[in-house]
Amino acid sequence: MVKKVGVAILGLGVVGGGTYQTLVKHREFYKQTQNVDVTVESVLVRSGKRVKELGIPEELVAKTIEEVVANPAVDIVVETIGGCGVAKEYILAALNEGKSVVTANKELICKYSHELERVAKRNSCGLYYEASCVGGVPIIRTLLDGVQANRITEMMGIINGTTNYILTKMTQEGAEYDEVLKEAQRLGYAEADPTADVEGHDATYKLSILASMAFHTKVPYTKIFREGISEVGRKDIQFGKELGYTLKLLAIAKNTEKGIEVRVHPTFVRDRHPLAAVNDSYNAVFLRGDAVGDVMLYGRGAGAFPTASAVVSDVIFAATHADVKYSTFKNTANADPNVNFISDFESAYYIRLFVDDKAGTLTKITGIFARYGISIVVVDQKGRADPTATGDAARVPLVVITHKTRENSIKKAVAKINETDLAIVRSVIRVEDQ
Amino acid sequence: MVKKVGVAILGLGVVGGGTYQTLVKHREFYKQTQNVDVTVESVLVRSGKRVKELGIPEELVAKTIEEVVANPAVDIVVETIGGCGVAKEYILAALNEGKSVVTANKELICKYSHELERVAKRNSCGLYYEASCVGGVPIIRTLLDGVQANRITEMMGIINGTTNYILTKMTQEGAEYDEVLKEAQRLGYAEADPTADVEGHDATYKLSILASMAFHTKVPYTKIFREGISEVGRKDIQFGKELGYTLKLLAIAKNTEKGIEVRVHPTFVRDRHPLAAVNDSYNAVFLRGDAVGDVMLYGRGAGAFPTASAVVSDVIFAATHADVKYSTFKNTANADPNVNFISDFESAYYIRLFVDDKAGTLTKITGIFARYGISIVVVDQKGRADPTATGDAARVPLVVITHKTRENSIKKAVAKINETDLAIVRSVIRVEDQ
Repeated sequence: MVKKVGVAILGLGVVGGGTYQTLVKHREFYKQTQNVDVTVESVLVRSGKRVKELGIPEELVAKTIEEVVANPAVDIVVETIGGCGVAKEYILAALNEGKSVVTANKELICKYSHELERVAKRNSCGLYYEASCVGGVPIIRTLLDGVQANRITEMMGIINGTTNYILTKMTQEGAEYDEVLKEAQRLGYAEADPTADVEGHDATYKLSILASMAFHTKVPYTKIFREGISEVGRKDIQFGKELGYTLKLLAIAKNTEKGIEVRVHPTFVRDRHPLAAVNDSYNAVFLRGDAVGDVMLYGRGAGAFPTASAVVSDVIFAATHADVKYSTFKNTANADPNVNFISDFESAYYIRLFVDDKAGTLTKITGIFARYGISIVVVDQKGRADPTATGDAARVPLVVITHKTRENSIKKAVAKINETDLAIVRSVIRVEDQ
Repeated sequence: MVKKVGVAILGLGVVGGGTYQTLVKHREFYKQTQNVDVTVESVLVRSGKRVKELGIPEELVAKTIEEVVANPAVDIVVETIGGCGVAKEYILAALNEGKSVVTANKELICKYSHELERVAKRNSCGLYYEASCVGGVPIIRTLLDGVQANRITEMMGIINGTTNYILTKMTQEGAEYDEVLKEAQRLGYAEADPTADVEGHDATYKLSILASMAFHTKVPYTKIFREGISEVGRKDIQFGKELGYTLKLLAIAKNTEKGIEVRVHPTFVRDRHPLAAVNDSYNAVFLRGDAVGDVMLYGRGAGAFPTASAVVSDVIFAATHADVKYSTFKNTANADPNVNFISDFESAYYIRLFVDDKAGTLTKITGIFARYGISIVVVDQKGRADPTATGDAARVPLVVITHKTRENSIKKAVAKINETDLAIVRSVIRVEDQ
């Protein structure tokens, strides 16, 4: 017996369009393999242009959200509008009419999941958001139903495709940030206003969702330390490479006895680490569980069809598991409201200085590090200055890699070094030295 | 409201013991995070030794399978005995009493899943076997509920830890097979009788299960082309490396318009391919879906706690999705009984020959390849023979890499070359050139 399920799609942008096309193309396939006949019964769009492009029959086009949710043929509402405006209003309208919701909206889930979940629960509906994080990679399904036997202690991910594309090109071609950003914009890998991606906001939304699920608590995105890639220089990537490191924008979450540590920032990882090989617009999430050990999921983090894969997989799950209502949010139900967030975290560091190339400089600099309890793994002076030069010409780059130390100690040491007239700190990049 | 769920564990070997320990250790954690109170209510073992070692209360030890399945406190039966003997009998007994079953038994699921599934369905029970493939990596959950929106066209995996450990050591240390096997046996990575692993049987069982689920049909293990690693030489690994390839025992499944192609054999992959970086006893499965594109899952494919992670995650899924009865086997329900299995598959090839180092040899050999329509990418002669030498001393190794061609063409060309008195083919290794 094939079960009939009707879907409405709100918004027909890249992901909404990909979702429509996938559902239409695979209707027979899902009947055969999933015992479910999924049909698109309604679409809601601002302009008719995409309706034509996608060949959607006119009679499916609804005029208002009220019309969509009042349609008895609609069982599941897919939201692919994005943002926290009408998307939120429409999702609430659907849940309040008893329709389960599948969304790709990371910002909305990050900011309002608890409110939406309450409404879903009250109305006995499901709320699914696999597509909100890491495109087609089933990381949310994995956290919910694949590794839920584990206490997850750590998560590290490359969860933004734009920045990974830019850093990969900078690494492979030795190009500067501005140059690669322009190329990425031309190719559609970066938005005209790239801020949300390159400054790490997009990654903090996703990390908030993933860390909340992994650690069974609410990890607000406002608690996430954030640093983007717009200040990253070609030179640092080059110097890192010479020492066996690859630069990635990592989202890191650790659950320790002292509290939760969450951060998004450019990070050097060892070349041999699996995340170092994740290139271009690919994404990956690395998990550590107390039973399973290390697990990594890798795939496309964005794009019409990879994201549609997640949306449609959620639609099928919702259609075939109709009795399982709250599966997507059971995990934070008993969250500890008093969880401690660690801001003075521990890390190893890469520090690039510009120093006077003369006897005694190194002793003074390493002395400052020592004063703040920072021990050093590598000191690597790049080249020599002309002994007769003065000013900047008498200076050379110096790269220091530290052992694990506290963020605050590094801040103090850097301020102290900058107070001297011997050196200036040009960049500080955290290192995951596993 | 916390739901109470009782578990019986059959067999307390490595995986059964890890399962017991994980369930006991995390009882409070699962109550908090999953709203389910999972307790071990019964164990069935051949000897009392493990009961003592694991500190299991004597009153939990059952004498017979009848006693286990008659126990009203037992809701879910975990089978970690292995093999197709009593394990099958016990699972059938549990299902016939209406108990859902979680098993780690790849051989049994590979050979008897259809029979077991029929009995499960008749009794409205679930049958779960995440732990049967790739240890703690949630590949089965991913196929069922993570990427089910896709037609999966291809799957490539490193799904046997023992052989990956051996090949990694041979690659990194330049050691010979026999030497590394002995070390692996000493360290517990290989069995005293390593046949099931090194000859690829273990991988064919897993590939049969995974390809059946991925392609929504029954892929019997007897249809899988199989070649183990016991004939692999240090030299081939070395020569491959020089050409930018890494040797892995790959399980490959392709779903094409012409039919299904399934094989397990030593394979050269490009060094830059994500599978090339999967080392030691780690496993990984690479999937290609028509919407999601490429996805890879990576993690520990064996061991007490990684495998227990899969068993216990299934137990929790069964406990919290009690209304979803047939989820693990819906996918092959509508299998095409007339599916075609391709034996004369296409591949690129690495061929190592031992050839007379004299003018004309190369022309004759390449001529034979050409006669069978095989085009060549690389010919690489290793060293020169002493021009005055005779016999074997007048010969040198020659490595040939071909474009994609048919398996049968290679077989014929190799036979032809061996008929000449100019050269002998020492090894033929398939190449995945993506």
